[in-house]
Amino acid sequence: MSAARESCLARDARDIQRFAAETDVLVVGLGAAGAAATIEARAAGARVMAVERASGGGGTSAMSGGVLYLGGGTPVQKECGFEDSAEDMYKYLIASVGPTPDEAKIALYSEGSLEHFHWVTDCGVPFKAVFYPGYSGEPPNEDGLVYSGNEQVYPFCEIARPAPRGHVPRIPGQAGGLLMQHLLATTEKTGAELHFDTRCTALVQHADGSVAGAVLRSGDREISVRARRGVVLTTGGFINNRDMIERYAPLLLRCKFRVGAEGDDGSGIALGMAVGGAAIHMEQGSVSLPIHPPKEISKGILVNAQGQRFVAEDSYFGRLGEHILYHQQGHAYWVLDDATFVRPDVPREVAGVGNTWAELEAELMLPTGSLESSVALYNRHAANGRDPLFHKRAAYLTPLTRPPFGAFDCTTDNSLFAAFTLGGLSTDADGRVRDASDAAIPGLYAAGRATSGIAAPGYSSGLSLGDGTFFGRRAGRAAASA
Amino acid sequence: MSAARESCLARDARDIQRFAAETDVLVVGLGAAGAAATIEARAAGARVMAVERASGGGGTSAMSGGVLYLGGGTPVQKECGFEDSAEDMYKYLIASVGPTPDEAKIALYSEGSLEHFHWVTDCGVPFKAVFYPGYSGEPPNEDGLVYSGNEQVYPFCEIARPAPRGHVPRIPGQAGGLLMQHLLATTEKTGAELHFDTRCTALVQHADGSVAGAVLRSGDREISVRARRGVVLTTGGFINNRDMIERYAPLLLRCKFRVGAEGDDGSGIALGMAVGGAAIHMEQGSVSLPIHPPKEISKGILVNAQGQRFVAEDSYFGRLGEHILYHQQGHAYWVLDDATFVRPDVPREVAGVGNTWAELEAELMLPTGSLESSVALYNRHAANGRDPLFHKRAAYLTPLTRPPFGAFDCTTDNSLFAAFTLGGLSTDADGRVRDASDAAIPGLYAAGRATSGIAAPGYSSGLSLGDGTFFGRRAGRAAASA
Repeated sequence: MSAARESCLARDARDIQRFAAETDVLVVGLGAAGAAATIEARAAGARVMAVERASGGGGTSAMSGGVLYLGGGTPVQKECGFEDSAEDMYKYLIASVGPTPDEAKIALYSEGSLEHFHWVTDCGVPFKAVFYPGYSGEPPNEDGLVYSGNEQVYPFCEIARPAPRGHVPRIPGQAGGLLMQHLLATTEKTGAELHFDTRCTALVQHADGSVAGAVLRSGDREISVRARRGVVLTTGGFINNRDMIERYAPLLLRCKFRVGAEGDDGSGIALGMAVGGAAIHMEQGSVSLPIHPPKEISKGILVNAQGQRFVAEDSYFGRLGEHILYHQQGHAYWVLDDATFVRPDVPREVAGVGNTWAELEAELMLPTGSLESSVALYNRHAANGRDPLFHKRAAYLTPLTRPPFGAFDCTTDNSLFAAFTLGGLSTDADGRVRDASDAAIPGLYAAGRATSGIAAPGYSSGLSLGDGTFFGRRAGRAAASA
Repeated sequence: MSAARESCLARDARDIQRFAAETDVLVVGLGAAGAAATIEARAAGARVMAVERASGGGGTSAMSGGVLYLGGGTPVQKECGFEDSAEDMYKYLIASVGPTPDEAKIALYSEGSLEHFHWVTDCGVPFKAVFYPGYSGEPPNEDGLVYSGNEQVYPFCEIARPAPRGHVPRIPGQAGGLLMQHLLATTEKTGAELHFDTRCTALVQHADGSVAGAVLRSGDREISVRARRGVVLTTGGFINNRDMIERYAPLLLRCKFRVGAEGDDGSGIALGMAVGGAAIHMEQGSVSLPIHPPKEISKGILVNAQGQRFVAEDSYFGRLGEHILYHQQGHAYWVLDDATFVRPDVPREVAGVGNTWAELEAELMLPTGSLESSVALYNRHAANGRDPLFHKRAAYLTPLTRPPFGAFDCTTDNSLFAAFTLGGLSTDADGRVRDASDAAIPGLYAAGRATSGIAAPGYSSGLSLGDGTFFGRRAGRAAASA
């Protein structure tokens, strides 16, 4: 029988004669969440060992766009002339992230956002207080503030006063590298014991279910480490584990671009589950249709396999992607006329061109009359600056009347969709991993994409690094003072 | 620390001095899956103890419509004049149940369906070989065969030759009671040791992760039972556990009617998770819009909040419900003209009436021109007996032109949707519960709605009782011969 359990990710503490090493807090994974947990656990006076399976820290955070979702009136927001409040941030997040948002976490995150901004800058991360008007996505320059979600989009714009909350470190392009450079430098300064090329292969559990430490492997060598106050799992998501994706989030297989470092294979989620941790929202993902900028493309309409519109085209590209993959069976075309035609930055195939809507419809193999009918209804209202179906903003409403008409292929099968997982361990606001009965497992903490976080479904850019660092800090502090 | 773990659902075998009782196979829960497991474990020569928390067996199975999804040319199908094959049944199921169907299970289930039919009738369950032509749902009379899924609906009708596979025990109305009466009588005859008013409060686990037995409670008395060959969890789903629904399947909260006995509170899923079992498809549910019969209502059209059609109206009512809840934000109206008007058997509010489409549109507060536009396109094709958008069958295609026009409210907020959960423990084809790494946990089996089964998403009526009894039998046999 024990043969079948050789792969067991949980070891019984009674089977360990003597731990080879001891620490107060053991942090597993050194991306943004792990760095934040390490820094704060050290600040709280704990001895900390942090291990990373790669040869250096950074993980997916370092590969990312570096956007941090922060608000409540940060200095960057103020200098750029935007008013914001913790209340508006809270209302936006509650409205946007799924049918049962984690109100306690979102309240803490919104109220603590300003303080968290200062913590990030105190770590040395620089932000240029210039607003980048290209919506939803990382600026191609050093600009430090963007709209990174659906704040201006109906119905969210009516629920909470819109403000841009995407804070981007000062470097053109993938700013996650710069963010991690500073977070890792700060981590090193804390005097935490850091081990690279070291992976956690099992958690060590007492008979009462509490976590006592972990088994670590580096090369051929395996040692057990006692963590007197707690283990913090900050190992990332599971987009690069095909088996787990098939089992839990199979629709994500249809997205060609999987966003994540090699380490995003769900190892920490599996470790947590092996000691009874509950994994939640495992089917959910951030799914982007990266068709930005230019934002002028929003003057076109997005239609499904029935030639029908299905979402406000000025939505954040993550919302577009979610709608197409989850609700339109991965089938969508972006339709423009000659007056509105622009090429998206991310190249996309032209799926069809026609001098009449009937011609385009036929080229796209849409049902006869379907696109024509959708465009007629759209044009009728757009001429009055209205979109009663989906409430696209007036700036993007203009009748599509000048031939030729054309369509970009936005099907998941033929175009680029970017995805990562949003499911993971269930945690409370202090990062304690919860079991199936919602009780905390003593000694076990988690943060970042190894947890489900606050953002599923209804993702806005910056929520992964934002909640990963914010709740990573809280997990580090909670573990240190356990 | 141990205080926090008092609710712990897993006990360490080393902490148990002496088991109060012993058996070969312990079955937890006596619905259809539990009865099937018990009967087969006994037939395989094992000593079996079966426990049920209620005062009698039956569970949700006994409250259900009693439909068993069976095919491949059963005597009932043949007598009713339908041809069917295991291959067509396999192809239909593969096409209908989700993006990553469990091919191994579906193959066994399709190939073994005929033998399983005989097993069910050998247990004494009677079927009247008369086909009931009212589609998707239980007959109001003794008729024994119905279409209980989307077999005749596009695209499934083109993928596999349609055949009705819903086998209903011979009694008018809720035939689950009759089914369970016979399954329980057969269970009793096997000589298995049956205990009612007895619940399982924890599993007992060896240090190697294998399951040694369970802790049972009856009244104030708690005893530990050693299960030499295995424990089989057949405890049902979790529709009646509000916390679990909020955490895993929050959209189901919008359905007013929750289908399940009191015991469907996820207790067995939580027990399995506590020893490292992985729960999969936890977000999924069977969601029905019970608007049947008369099937003539399919001559109307179903539209969303944008006045657009979104599904073939002649689909199985479970498919309609899934589309409305998961893809249309719970918003739908069933629209008819005076010529097609019929009242559904399940009463529904009339949401609006109008002498023109514009009037009805206004009463329903749909965007101006939206319904008018959808109806115009629908009528244009219906006049030719075609539905290029959703391929509704020609029998239900007739232009909607005779005023007054009316609509039934089919929103989840204002009308009746029936839901139960389809997520649960991950099992292999022999019912072995798998952990996060997909390895079987020795000594632990599960079947029925405590597992995710083969039916998520894309439910057809009869798959719960069908796969519950089929894989319940396999789990019982596998445990008995462990």
